[in-house]
Amino acid sequence: MEMTMRSYPNEWVSESIMYRQGVGGGYSGKSHRLTKEEQGDYHYTIGPYSSPVLKISPGDQVVVDTADAFEGKIKSESDKPTEILEMPWLNPQCGPILIEGAEKGDTIAVHIEEMIPRGDQPRGTCCMIPEFGALTGTNYTATLNDPLPERVRKINLDEENVYWSERVTLPYKPHIGTLSCSPEIDSINSLTPDSHGGNMDLPDMGPGTITYLPVRSKGARLFIGDAHACQGDGEVCGVAVEYATTTTITVDLIKDWTIEWPRLEADDFIMAIGSTRPLEDATRIAYRELIRWMVSDYGYDQWDAYMMLSQCGKVRLGNFVDPKYTVGAAVSKKYIFS
Amino acid sequence: MEMTMRSYPNEWVSESIMYRQGVGGGYSGKSHRLTKEEQGDYHYTIGPYSSPVLKISPGDQVVVDTADAFEGKIKSESDKPTEILEMPWLNPQCGPILIEGAEKGDTIAVHIEEMIPRGDQPRGTCCMIPEFGALTGTNYTATLNDPLPERVRKINLDEENVYWSERVTLPYKPHIGTLSCSPEIDSINSLTPDSHGGNMDLPDMGPGTITYLPVRSKGARLFIGDAHACQGDGEVCGVAVEYATTTTITVDLIKDWTIEWPRLEADDFIMAIGSTRPLEDATRIAYRELIRWMVSDYGYDQWDAYMMLSQCGKVRLGNFVDPKYTVGAAVSKKYIFS
Amino acid sequence: MEMTMRSYPNEWVSESIMYRQGVGGGYSGKSHRLTKEEQGDYHYTIGPYSSPVLKISPGDQVVVDTADAFEGKIKSESDKPTEILEMPWLNPQCGPILIEGAEKGDTIAVHIEEMIPRGDQPRGTCCMIPEFGALTGTNYTATLNDPLPERVRKINLDEENVYWSERVTLPYKPHIGTLSCSPEIDSINSLTPDSHGGNMDLPDMGPGTITYLPVRSKGARLFIGDAHACQGDGEVCGVAVEYATTTTITVDLIKDWTIEWPRLEADDFIMAIGSTRPLEDATRIAYRELIRWMVSDYGYDQWDAYMMLSQCGKVRLGNFVDPKYTVGAAVSKKYIFS
Amino acid sequence: MEMTMRSYPNEWVSESIMYRQGVGGGYSGKSHRLTKEEQGDYHYTIGPYSSPVLKISPGDQVVVDTADAFEGKIKSESDKPTEILEMPWLNPQCGPILIEGAEKGDTIAVHIEEMIPRGDQPRGTCCMIPEFGALTGTNYTATLNDPLPERVRKINLDEENVYWSERVTLPYKPHIGTLSCSPEIDSINSLTPDSHGGNMDLPDMGPGTITYLPVRSKGARLFIGDAHACQGDGEVCGVAVEYATTTTITVDLIKDWTIEWPRLEADDFIMAIGSTRPLEDATRIAYRELIRWMVSDYGYDQWDAYMMLSQCGKVRLGNFVDPKYTVGAAVSKKYIFS
Repeated sequence: MEMTMRSYPNEWVSESIMYRQGVGGGYSGKSHRLTKEEQGDYHYTIGPYSSPVLKISPGDQVVVDTADAFEGKIKSESDKPTEILEMPWLNPQCGPILIEGAEKGDTIAVHIEEMIPRGDQPRGTCCMIPEFGALTGTNYTATLNDPLPERVRKINLDEENVYWSERVTLPYKPHIGTLSCSPEIDSINSLTPDSHGGNMDLPDMGPGTITYLPVRSKGARLFIGDAHACQGDGEVCGVAVEYATTTTITVDLIKDWTIEWPRLEADDFIMAIGSTRPLEDATRIAYRELIRWMVSDYGYDQWDAYMMLSQCGKVRLGNFVDPKYTVGAAVSKKYIFS
Repeated sequence: MEMTMRSYPNEWVSESIMYRQGVGGGYSGKSHRLTKEEQGDYHYTIGPYSSPVLKISPGDQVVVDTADAFEGKIKSESDKPTEILEMPWLNPQCGPILIEGAEKGDTIAVHIEEMIPRGDQPRGTCCMIPEFGALTGTNYTATLNDPLPERVRKINLDEENVYWSERVTLPYKPHIGTLSCSPEIDSINSLTPDSHGGNMDLPDMGPGTITYLPVRSKGARLFIGDAHACQGDGEVCGVAVEYATTTTITVDLIKDWTIEWPRLEADDFIMAIGSTRPLEDATRIAYRELIRWMVSDYGYDQWDAYMMLSQCGKVRLGNFVDPKYTVGAAVSKKYIFS
Repeated sequence: MEMTMRSYPNEWVSESIMYRQGVGGGYSGKSHRLTKEEQGDYHYTIGPYSSPVLKISPGDQVVVDTADAFEGKIKSESDKPTEILEMPWLNPQCGPILIEGAEKGDTIAVHIEEMIPRGDQPRGTCCMIPEFGALTGTNYTATLNDPLPERVRKINLDEENVYWSERVTLPYKPHIGTLSCSPEIDSINSLTPDSHGGNMDLPDMGPGTITYLPVRSKGARLFIGDAHACQGDGEVCGVAVEYATTTTITVDLIKDWTIEWPRLEADDFIMAIGSTRPLEDATRIAYRELIRWMVSDYGYDQWDAYMMLSQCGKVRLGNFVDPKYTVGAAVSKKYIFS
Repeated sequence: MEMTMRSYPNEWVSESIMYRQGVGGGYSGKSHRLTKEEQGDYHYTIGPYSSPVLKISPGDQVVVDTADAFEGKIKSESDKPTEILEMPWLNPQCGPILIEGAEKGDTIAVHIEEMIPRGDQPRGTCCMIPEFGALTGTNYTATLNDPLPERVRKINLDEENVYWSERVTLPYKPHIGTLSCSPEIDSINSLTPDSHGGNMDLPDMGPGTITYLPVRSKGARLFIGDAHACQGDGEVCGVAVEYATTTTITVDLIKDWTIEWPRLEADDFIMAIGSTRPLEDATRIAYRELIRWMVSDYGYDQWDAYMMLSQCGKVRLGNFVDPKYTVGAAVSKKYIFS
């Protein structure tokens, strides 16, 4: 297999953990195309029981057509989510993609290179779904209040902007909401994030960044879906600007690097990601994983790392609306690679 | 099929919801035996992807040999749980058992008739597992403290007593820790309770009571395991007196009664069960479900039920150590059947 | 001062911690009367900044007229709590009562002897207050849902029963909702429980039991109020059957016994009490305090106590509606005094 | 009184809410000096029961010498916090300062102009205090684990940098950790944030920003203290780089603007601040207050604001270590003033 150097959109990637430690070595072999037709049925649960749709080698690229979280079913602002959507058939995932050589205990690196909007305008969808979102009683925070009204927003968007309203235009800040390898024996619905990844809804997980995911089954079984054209911290109403994309990722395999929770690398920071309830526990997980990472890979004393992050750690709230909440804890690379 | 009336250990059962609404009508058909040999491999995840081990009719009885939560691997007080136990291969479940005619939207009733200890003394096992339990940092409540020490207790027990220590003898109060029908598309590890049931660890779920479980897949796919010879509220150290049993259940099917979360009926109370984190949300779920039950089945006005439970509702803390916490909210039957 | 033995309503009291360790020694000196007139203005915050209304000696009895939590302002079922009640002037407290000789680090024992209803029928009040209660969005669990409707229930009650409705009569189970000594420097509104005691709303805190409270300022500064004619676990709608009483307590002082959180002793159990959010942390506090108590006073090994409570600990949910939630963790005296 | 225009360090302030709505109108009257001597005893509880140290008019400036959170008692890295520090005498506050004309229902604006380090090097202190911090069992998240070790760091710092270690130099990012007006009847220890403000530990609350605080008693009774030379999101180990400062603030009074929780204005965003446990509820409060602000003051429809913040809201985690956790929810001014 002839290998050619890929020109990454971000120069920093050639200094990344993925590039330096990945089996694929930053070189790409094949580029694979995963369209809706090749995908066939989407998956709504992330586990070891579904049939792979693609098998790739470390360092390969995949160009995948993701559906929006509602599978394109919400077409107009007069649509009623409660009439159109049916649990648990939400948040359709592409995959599973097998990565050659991946085994329990390894780590998969996913470099998101590009996310291009697909479909006719208005391509974006936001809505208020009864008993879903942060500022309403829900199935878990069970109240007797009447639910909030249903609302649908259909939104024009392109690679520059999200045209939210007459008054407000937001920048296009694409990212992948749901990304994961399979758990070992569980199959977890695609609405729920956990230590495997899943529905993290982390705005940092966009083009130019690399996500590291723990491998828990042979071949890793990578799932991807749930693109957002932009999202605020916490995804407060429960829904981002959901849209369909053509997303390009390069996937590599890191042997002998076992991680317990997902991690993310950007040009200027590294981040550990935790997902659970209550929110302080998600934050605890993220910070503890970040400390452990600094200790094992970067020579930090554990107490020095703990006290130092108390001065310069950064926290990103991914979501506090999903069945588990997601938090990233990050530190600037300048304090790590010094 | 000839039907004969079974003599129930508790007379009240003939007035139960199961008896009055079940397809099996309180009559038993066959009695089935599910030994370790007939079970074959246990299951560690509760879902729709495993092969049934038994198919029964509504009203049938099953006599099942349950293994203890550690599958009998902890044999002496010098054993180290961290050396012997391997995640996620914990809490082995018997089943799945198919119930004829059960479909999504129905409810399965499980009347626990009898739980007889199995195996040589000391039959019971309790232990402290590092980073597991309520009074320690855990994988979720992530701390940097050193873990608690490992400790194993092997305990003699019979159908009268649990011989905890020289100083303390506890009464035998058997119950089933993990009971569930399958989720629709998820497969959930047997350590986690949720709306399907699962690892609820509710001391009330013992002989003489009936548990009602939502059916979400064809045949219901019933799983059972995790017997406790006794357990305190909350299962504070993370482990009850775990033991192997021969347990007798009668299983019935209730059509046209859809429940969102498990429910339990005893001679003198009805209980709704919620499982999530944080603990107040589990309690909210339980109380809301109880109110909805009182409104839909017993003619209560919603606000009257809400204010009345504020005066006479009873709360049982099942566990606050599992990945989700379990709470039952109950009301005396004398206020319901009045 | 001549001391005469008081005949306690419960014989067990003569074996209690209070009786055995109290300075007053189970003998009573004076009996004091604290009427509304002698009280003057009630207090709505519990702290060191208010003027004492009474000074007593250890072992003295106080017969106090408590007002209901709404200070009697809700008189009819057509009253609107939002029009009548004004924050923070809720939950009026009698006191502070100074106990001679009490100093920071000591413990006050409060034996509730009797609670007699006062006032004209219908004496009891329950209501639904918008944004207050467990099954509604609140000031803390901030949602955008419309609030629940206001509802007022006026209830006849006597020393036998609470006549809730045509359908339901509940037994009279009186208890004190709010009981505390003063914090050291904080003054905490009477709606909030914490380590000083306060608005615990614990149904066990009724006649025949003894509550132990930490002393944090000279004279202890005891406050009492908020009687409930009955209350369910958790006080789910936010309000019990609130009523005015004449309550008789005997107060004693225990030197050289420092407790961090309130404790309770009944004829057959001892209980430690924790109050915070989320609810699992309140439960953690209660169980940890109970273990510490068993270790320091009853010769238990810490790990044995931890594992044993996992088999026989009992949890009472006081409230999960106040600004902090209250949980009691209890163990049977038969396992303690063995 | 002759008024002269003050030259603000940030030009945007002349467009601020404080400038446009304040009684002082952006003009300064007197400049007051509040040294340690003029302060006298610091306060460790924030309430209506202490004697004012200063009375100012709206628009006045105060130059105040703040002590560090340990009152300068931790002098060397061999000091033991547990031997030196005594609860509840922590986090000393300057004040209370009376603002003329302030009444319940008004809002106080505090423009932080400048924070200059005071004292000899090493001026900064960080430490690990047993049972305090996010990644350890605490008094609330009560565990049986051994506490983390005590550690003290003394740190050189100037108006450019915080010289954390040989390896890491952090930028000087000063801010006020504790800022509040008095509650109405409660007196709340200075370690706890709540709706009055208090120990929010929000890194945004630095020079060039304006904090808005609800007035709940006559004269507002402003308290200030707890300067941090820098702090990471969440203050994970429980302690920032604590130091003594000379801080310059201008204080104004806004009549007819009642806020329920503190708010903050910077050059490019507005932020609402919530403090409670669990952390999701603090975030809910912050987002709900931000939505209410957008609706009442900036013409937003409530559902549009809710869905829009789901796309562009920013969340700052102040602390998740104090008795209550603090979160700020912010939105860019460009979406507000459009």
